[in-house]
Amino acid sequence: MTKMFLSLVLSLLMMPSLIAKEEVIREIFANALHSHVAYENLRILCETTEGRLSGTPEAAAAVEFTRQVMAGMDLDSVYLQEVMVPNWQRGEPEVARAISARLGTAELTALAFGLSVGTGPEGLTAPVVELDGLDELEALGREQLEGRIVFFNRHFDHSYYNTFDGYSATVGARFRGPALAAEYGAVAAVVRSVTTADHDYAHTGVTRFAEDGPNIPALALSPVAADKLSNWLQKDPDLNLYLRNTSHRLPDVLSYNVIGEIRGSKYPNEIITVGGHLDSWDNTQGAHDDGAGCMQSIDVLRIFRELGIQPKRTVRAVMFMDEEIAQRGGNKYADLAHKHGEEHYFAIESDRGAFTPRGFSIDADDTRLEAVKTLKPYFQPYGIHEIFAGFSGVDIVPLKNYYDEVTLAGLHTDTQRYFDLHHAASDTFDQVNRREMQLGSAAMAALIYLVDALDLLVTD
Amino acid sequence: MTKMFLSLVLSLLMMPSLIAKEEVIREIFANALHSHVAYENLRILCETTEGRLSGTPEAAAAVEFTRQVMAGMDLDSVYLQEVMVPNWQRGEPEVARAISARLGTAELTALAFGLSVGTGPEGLTAPVVELDGLDELEALGREQLEGRIVFFNRHFDHSYYNTFDGYSATVGARFRGPALAAEYGAVAAVVRSVTTADHDYAHTGVTRFAEDGPNIPALALSPVAADKLSNWLQKDPDLNLYLRNTSHRLPDVLSYNVIGEIRGSKYPNEIITVGGHLDSWDNTQGAHDDGAGCMQSIDVLRIFRELGIQPKRTVRAVMFMDEEIAQRGGNKYADLAHKHGEEHYFAIESDRGAFTPRGFSIDADDTRLEAVKTLKPYFQPYGIHEIFAGFSGVDIVPLKNYYDEVTLAGLHTDTQRYFDLHHAASDTFDQVNRREMQLGSAAMAALIYLVDALDLLVTD
Repeated sequence: MTKMFLSLVLSLLMMPSLIAKEEVIREIFANALHSHVAYENLRILCETTEGRLSGTPEAAAAVEFTRQVMAGMDLDSVYLQEVMVPNWQRGEPEVARAISARLGTAELTALAFGLSVGTGPEGLTAPVVELDGLDELEALGREQLEGRIVFFNRHFDHSYYNTFDGYSATVGARFRGPALAAEYGAVAAVVRSVTTADHDYAHTGVTRFAEDGPNIPALALSPVAADKLSNWLQKDPDLNLYLRNTSHRLPDVLSYNVIGEIRGSKYPNEIITVGGHLDSWDNTQGAHDDGAGCMQSIDVLRIFRELGIQPKRTVRAVMFMDEEIAQRGGNKYADLAHKHGEEHYFAIESDRGAFTPRGFSIDADDTRLEAVKTLKPYFQPYGIHEIFAGFSGVDIVPLKNYYDEVTLAGLHTDTQRYFDLHHAASDTFDQVNRREMQLGSAAMAALIYLVDALDLLVTD
Repeated sequence: MTKMFLSLVLSLLMMPSLIAKEEVIREIFANALHSHVAYENLRILCETTEGRLSGTPEAAAAVEFTRQVMAGMDLDSVYLQEVMVPNWQRGEPEVARAISARLGTAELTALAFGLSVGTGPEGLTAPVVELDGLDELEALGREQLEGRIVFFNRHFDHSYYNTFDGYSATVGARFRGPALAAEYGAVAAVVRSVTTADHDYAHTGVTRFAEDGPNIPALALSPVAADKLSNWLQKDPDLNLYLRNTSHRLPDVLSYNVIGEIRGSKYPNEIITVGGHLDSWDNTQGAHDDGAGCMQSIDVLRIFRELGIQPKRTVRAVMFMDEEIAQRGGNKYADLAHKHGEEHYFAIESDRGAFTPRGFSIDADDTRLEAVKTLKPYFQPYGIHEIFAGFSGVDIVPLKNYYDEVTLAGLHTDTQRYFDLHHAASDTFDQVNRREMQLGSAAMAALIYLVDALDLLVTD
């Protein structure tokens, strides 16, 4: 009888609170789905700061634009965080030309990878060795690779439902292939673009060389170019490839993270971060990667203000600088948080494209992971059906350097289209659907609202 | 002990079968995600039979194209079903012009609704009454509506997560508004396009008049045109609208459903139907609505053949003719099934766009609904997370006229983008993502494979 009474009291105590919160979530989604603000700001960002790689004037313009957007929003504070960023420059348009005594010449669409050195102004010409994967390098050895251009032609593996899994299975050739090829004496490396598409856009991205190792020009080929080169190599294994790129790195320059915040009413020193990265590759509008994540993060603050949601903790939208090359912005943010004695309660990043949200990955201890999983019923009406342990985001993960207990999250989206446009000129504003994007803003606003209002991540 | 033994035996019996079926499902999805066949056929359909409204030469070309595609596929039979279809013709491009003594004139983008009569070659001019919903007609009454053009300007309600719910909440003005306005003496009706987009495309669709009621011209306005007209009406309520359309209906013509089938090895007279509709509106390529559904249905047969899956029951891909106006193809298909003494075991339709599949709606008795729900674990790895009671599809639902026990299903997709392009010129092939489309082919192939292999819908 006592038990029944207790459980009845508990039910009565819980029910109105649950209903009230469901109603807040409903308002968050309805507000987001009606709003055009973030979408129209993304349009401006894409059209006026295209190619905003860290260190460029376009990146500086993006800093100023997002600062102004937040300055006009009645937030409690808007400020910049200084961060020194890499300044890698692509230089002149790349030339990649297959030259065959039997087949003639063919121009191939190519883009230097970020941090690639140049060929020198004359370019370089060498025969080509086509490989599928990194493990073939050792079998061929220096005698078959020295003086050659290594061509990694691994196709995207479409078998995976989640294209990030297909990407992970393929991207090694870009990250590490050129450096490994250089160790075997290759004079350059070209890599089939890591993309789900079959088009003639090349997809760039960063490639890494050891500080003390050999360094060679490394370029992406478009899928069309890679198919052409592979086809010609079958007919004429002795063809040469001429490559020319003038990429080079200049000294680091000053840039900024851009931050806006709503101060917490009860725990102002406890920070909830919502962010995306403001830089893009230099060859793209960076609409999905990651202009949208920035605008969604700002939109979380807009939603809170418009609905009169006053968080207990400080909610901060952060536009991180330099995710693409050296992740300086994310690291600087964590360093300063620690230096300033902030407490970090929760952080979430949107950097998987502005597609329909499907769930959240959670990087936290088991207790907090299970606590977040209890929120699933709130999200079910909005098609968000997965809350699972997983990586959060490149820009927020440095918080773990200082905060053992912080809960990190990543917004997971429908992944089918992302690698059609990732790091390519095809990542344009017109590829963003307003409602899909706004569901992401709402999903993050709702999650932040719930973990704050319910004190869900307090375990002491 | 006996119970434990039994449950052990059952586990052993079930396990390999479960594992084997999961592996088949994995193969189905991997095959579909690698294949370009259906996507490239959709490209041809869109580019060569654009505007294939029932009764048009383009519809006839679409019949022949899909017949040839299936004839080249090593199926057990490919054939046509004769069906008489409506032949409504849009006529010359519509003119809609706001004429204000104070504001000047403005050309408005408009499209006659299917089955609308024309204005006559001279067009008609009348003052405009702007309404939000159908219920305002009665309040205004004949004295305020007679001789006027009624302008239904209800906006799409973005609050709904599922855009089909927003569509249902809005589309009444198109279906019934013109007929109701005519009863109050209106001389024409214009209706804000039922769309999630804000663009200058008008979205058509069918409108219905009672056989014995008055019949007036009825046109869709693009969102841009509707906003313009509404804005001008606020400044000048006395403006006139000039409308001209030459739409008219000709006698019915002969067309066809197109059918290809793999004969069942064990129960050849039990039919599993998978289909989409081959007709589109005359102003569009009909890529998502519903060229994709047709190509996905054919792809189910391709997947079965390529993977060597021999169904026990006959699996039939059906391209239904005339979904958009009078649903003659779907009705004829059911009539002939009955006439030929076929048994119908299961049918599924894809007519919600070639977007990432999210689930299946099931129209069946509770026992069969619960049986289908047990399949959820097979689909979970592919992001298909909802199996629920609901409407199946316009073309397959007539089977219920004859088959009480048939289980019907609808492929449910991510709905965010669908009403940006539904019934508009924006429904083009380039809006289709190959992987999203192929996940739909795989989802239907997998469901058909499971309900057949497991005899899941047999309840006797």
